[in-house]
Amino acid sequence: MSANPITKDYSHFEDLHIGQVIDLGQTKVTKQMIVEFASKFDPFPFHLDEEYAKKSLLGGLCASGWHTAALAIKACLDNFPNKLASGGGLGFENIKWKKPLMVNDIIGGTVTISNMRRSASNPQWGIITLNFDVCNQRGETIMLMTLNNLVDVRNPSAKLEEA
Amino acid sequence: MSANPITKDYSHFEDLHIGQVIDLGQTKVTKQMIVEFASKFDPFPFHLDEEYAKKSLLGGLCASGWHTAALAIKACLDNFPNKLASGGGLGFENIKWKKPLMVNDIIGGTVTISNMRRSASNPQWGIITLNFDVCNQRGETIMLMTLNNLVDVRNPSAKLEEA
Repeated sequence: MSANPITKDYSHFEDLHIGQVIDLGQTKVTKQMIVEFASKFDPFPFHLDEEYAKKSLLGGLCASGWHTAALAIKACLDNFPNKLASGGGLGFENIKWKKPLMVNDIIGGTVTISNMRRSASNPQWGIITLNFDVCNQRGETIMLMTLNNLVDVRNPSAKLEEA
Repeated sequence: MSANPITKDYSHFEDLHIGQVIDLGQTKVTKQMIVEFASKFDPFPFHLDEEYAKKSLLGGLCASGWHTAALAIKACLDNFPNKLASGGGLGFENIKWKKPLMVNDIIGGTVTISNMRRSASNPQWGIITLNFDVCNQRGETIMLMTLNNLVDVRNPSAKLEEA
């Protein structure tokens, strides 16, 4: 397993700007993916059993909301310019599942950097706020979420500036 | 794949009460689990590469925060009395990762039902609020999150009562 340690080539705090938009590309979500994830983490019949799911509120087999979130994170990282020099996630302010992600839907949408600030106590870190607007192939928003994430600062000794 | 369709034996809205606590049991989190999840969804080196992770902010190989959340959901479902007659999650108000989940840590903690209400527009559904306090084997909180979830009402024709 090559883990691609973060290098100076990655997008650091100074390389990003508020308002920057990352396109999430397109990820097709198959029945196999849905069932595999749900079996491990969210084993409800509307994520596992097509016949049952047809009669459920959701009207058919659909992905776990956690699966949608995890796929969106992966799509964001895959499509981040030069990859992100992440120090880890701090937390989410909000996750809303607006519509189900159904079998063979294609996940896409955007992530917008809505805020950036330097850590006052740890100058090697910046904190960026990422607003996810995750859509299906019809352009309908299926999930919204807001993530605060640590990002490496390229030059920690530089004076703290307002981002 | 047996999907265990929801039956009347499952815990329905009327079977639950505010203040009810679900113990999350104990789940040991191995390096293989961490690497497998992170490879698919959150492929940062501190989730994949032990040597790199030792030098990172987190001090060692640790699970994706999404993995922690998914494991907590699975633990909640596995430990719910009689299983939960869930109609699906509506969203999270907050997720906070307080400490990393490291290789060979044991995940546990509690989920508390902090609110319950009937849906006014859809009498077949109730909405419960679940407060997750996810701990490691030292009793330290590693993640907090609050989930609103749809739950089947056993007797939808019964008069709406204040929960």
